[in-house]
Amino acid sequence: MDTNASPSSKLADLVERIVHSYHAHPQLHHLDSTFLPSRDRAIEITELLRKIIFPGFFDEQRLTSDTVHHHAGDLLHQTHDLLYEQIRQALRYDLNRTQGNGKGDDCDDCDTQAQKVTFQFLERIPEIRRMLSLDVQAAFDGDPAAANYDETVFCYPGIDAIFIHRVAHELWKLDVPLLARIISEYSHNQTGIDIHPGATIDESFFLDHGTGVVIGETTEIGKRVKVYQGVTLGALSTKGGQVWRGRKRHPTIEDDVTIYGGAIILGGNTIIGQGSTIGGSVFLTQSVPAYHTVSMKLSELKITAARKPKNKAKATEAPSQANDDSGFEI
Amino acid sequence: MDTNASPSSKLADLVERIVHSYHAHPQLHHLDSTFLPSRDRAIEITELLRKIIFPGFFDEQRLTSDTVHHHAGDLLHQTHDLLYEQIRQALRYDLNRTQGNGKGDDCDDCDTQAQKVTFQFLERIPEIRRMLSLDVQAAFDGDPAAANYDETVFCYPGIDAIFIHRVAHELWKLDVPLLARIISEYSHNQTGIDIHPGATIDESFFLDHGTGVVIGETTEIGKRVKVYQGVTLGALSTKGGQVWRGRKRHPTIEDDVTIYGGAIILGGNTIIGQGSTIGGSVFLTQSVPAYHTVSMKLSELKITAARKPKNKAKATEAPSQANDDSGFEI
Amino acid sequence: MDTNASPSSKLADLVERIVHSYHAHPQLHHLDSTFLPSRDRAIEITELLRKIIFPGFFDEQRLTSDTVHHHAGDLLHQTHDLLYEQIRQALRYDLNRTQGNGKGDDCDDCDTQAQKVTFQFLERIPEIRRMLSLDVQAAFDGDPAAANYDETVFCYPGIDAIFIHRVAHELWKLDVPLLARIISEYSHNQTGIDIHPGATIDESFFLDHGTGVVIGETTEIGKRVKVYQGVTLGALSTKGGQVWRGRKRHPTIEDDVTIYGGAIILGGNTIIGQGSTIGGSVFLTQSVPAYHTVSMKLSELKITAARKPKNKAKATEAPSQANDDSGFEI
Repeated sequence: MDTNASPSSKLADLVERIVHSYHAHPQLHHLDSTFLPSRDRAIEITELLRKIIFPGFFDEQRLTSDTVHHHAGDLLHQTHDLLYEQIRQALRYDLNRTQGNGKGDDCDDCDTQAQKVTFQFLERIPEIRRMLSLDVQAAFDGDPAAANYDETVFCYPGIDAIFIHRVAHELWKLDVPLLARIISEYSHNQTGIDIHPGATIDESFFLDHGTGVVIGETTEIGKRVKVYQGVTLGALSTKGGQVWRGRKRHPTIEDDVTIYGGAIILGGNTIIGQGSTIGGSVFLTQSVPAYHTVSMKLSELKITAARKPKNKAKATEAPSQANDDSGFEI
Repeated sequence: MDTNASPSSKLADLVERIVHSYHAHPQLHHLDSTFLPSRDRAIEITELLRKIIFPGFFDEQRLTSDTVHHHAGDLLHQTHDLLYEQIRQALRYDLNRTQGNGKGDDCDDCDTQAQKVTFQFLERIPEIRRMLSLDVQAAFDGDPAAANYDETVFCYPGIDAIFIHRVAHELWKLDVPLLARIISEYSHNQTGIDIHPGATIDESFFLDHGTGVVIGETTEIGKRVKVYQGVTLGALSTKGGQVWRGRKRHPTIEDDVTIYGGAIILGGNTIIGQGSTIGGSVFLTQSVPAYHTVSMKLSELKITAARKPKNKAKATEAPSQANDDSGFEI
Repeated sequence: MDTNASPSSKLADLVERIVHSYHAHPQLHHLDSTFLPSRDRAIEITELLRKIIFPGFFDEQRLTSDTVHHHAGDLLHQTHDLLYEQIRQALRYDLNRTQGNGKGDDCDDCDTQAQKVTFQFLERIPEIRRMLSLDVQAAFDGDPAAANYDETVFCYPGIDAIFIHRVAHELWKLDVPLLARIISEYSHNQTGIDIHPGATIDESFFLDHGTGVVIGETTEIGKRVKVYQGVTLGALSTKGGQVWRGRKRHPTIEDDVTIYGGAIILGGNTIIGQGSTIGGSVFLTQSVPAYHTVSMKLSELKITAARKPKNKAKATEAPSQANDDSGFEI
């Protein structure tokens, strides 16, 4: 490129090459497609649903039993319109993707279908609230640090994550998977908790701390299950990638199971029986019968004395007195 | 529900049922309560304090020694007013919660008390800055990747987390726990580092990388402690939940201790003595004497040869040549 | 302090003491320095680049092959101006920091240099897109849960993280490290994935789930490498801190390696040979030859029966029937 060229002609030249690269790498562009769900709208919808489902917690104005009726109606209408638009986009987008551009553009049934699906989703709100009230109860009962229900709703990322999951999972079941996934990743981004919208989670679910938790697409979780931070409910090696698509790859966790922090449970045939407890950092690829406890035999630890620093001034250096294979910065 | 009904009548019907569900599930609503702290305000306060405590780093305009005085005064007045309002809300809210609605509404002492607590908090800012300057020094000294102090303040989530913790912990000590917790969860959300506002952390604390760190409510941490990512300072099994409320459930870490990544230290009676080093991924439920090093006896590894792919083209397939129990997608 | 003083005089007094503390703790202020990169601008630049690199995915309006040309041109001009300003700030800031205030203020060469570096960076955009198209392909091929490329671009934090890393790494190579680091920490904050801008990552890189991944400054990663959540590519103990600055402290991962979740690989001399597989939760500080598989010998597990609850009503209590050392809340 002519390095003496003026900035603007340099930029013009660069634009050409960038636009050229758009056609070279189709995976990275989404051009000439009339329909695409919007991440920003999906987030708006999620935040509207948060206010509908937890009235009075996240609103600017104070709500009373008298005012909440109009408030809920107003929010519900907004949600309906945004959701209808996004579901319509998603349905037409799917058609364009699977049957080639143009198909979606002419699909008037898509609009009728979108209208139907939108209501089917909104119809589920009371049931979603019933489930969430049991989740909030479980979080309060399960954590000595919880002072009251409000703190749980306000401050628990686990409640955030299960709220968004229960919403995304309904959209998943109603066959708008991309929209569901966008909403789930919004939650992952907010909470560090990664629950695939396909995962089935029954009532009274408690996720404590939550950071680093991964729950895969085909996981099934029963009632009154407690899961702590860093737990993975994942798949065994899926070398072969797409050939595994759709198969049951993730574990089944029955009612009343508790899984402590850092435990890793893998495989579509792995079943943790009702009432069992999985200890911290346990690594499991086999099933566990009902009412059993699995804990790690603590690996022996090497405990060695380090020279005590000569004087107080050296105190900050103390660790460096230890033999050097002792610690790892990881 | 009448599927032939018009959308608007369907929505009207749905609003009825949702409002009805509000009364069915009291844990999820916060109606008819005049007072509630606001998450948005709490975040505003935190960001104002960030600018007061780290002047010149996060401001739009350039600050000089001459202009900073007015700037700090302006920010401090804004903080005072927002904080007073939120503390007032919190105090009246607590009264309503503990002694029934109405009590808080008439509590004029709450306003005097809020004024007092607000100043008690603001009074602590210089001390918070002193502590943070030692934390920044510790982060710089401890990390070879740190090029200078500014990078530490600008780019280290660990500094972000300890800044917000030192603020939240003061509010915790001043008995506005819900506000403290809301601010802590804002930090958890931003950094992936989960420090309960009740945790006591002495000066020159260094948190490297930080993602996944969990530090529980009754943890006590001494001077010059270094903690790496994924470390948990947690409680032993708290089956029984709320009965454990208030008891010392989390470990005590003495001065000059270093805890490497992924280490898990549990229990209210667990004390890590001064100057000791805990190696990566160590799992500890017992105390360690002063100036000792604990490291994991590395679990033996199974190392097996995989068939080398026939040709370059197959290179991408290499992993799939391995016997299938070899790896785990988790 | 006079507790009877008026609020405003109390605040005035407090401002004095806070401003005084500014001079007491130089690490925490950035006053009297004319030049400093801005975190907000750095984020704006990143979001503009996202739209340039993934056209049509994150824009409000619909883009077509006809309109994208002007759109890209517009975005590129905005990016150029913001980036030039920030690089200029960074260069003058560096001079002020390394050679004392004033040096940077007079540095007119800085502006010429900034212009040059800005174009050198923008020139890299087509190559960055080429690399990212291979990353997106790798993510799709590697994950059975991925329905199509769009879902990968839209919903995979791993794609987010590698996009931002490839941008930050170019800035790092062009010698604007603080700006690069600010952009990397924006990604860490968004995704929970911590990749130092100095790390070298070759094409077709796949990061699944991602939360908790840490990749250090001097890490080198080859082609077609797959890394799952919670993996650390870190340094051995760096007691001594700053003395290690600049040395190779992090591992080298050759082509076609797969590293499963929670694996920890440490040390600047540790080389994982081409085509090898590292199993979940493996802890490695030694090299592995090409085409080998390393997996953890599963630590024996203690499996004990817990008393089955007398009746259904007690079912929720089941875990508490277990002997109490069985589980850990971590």
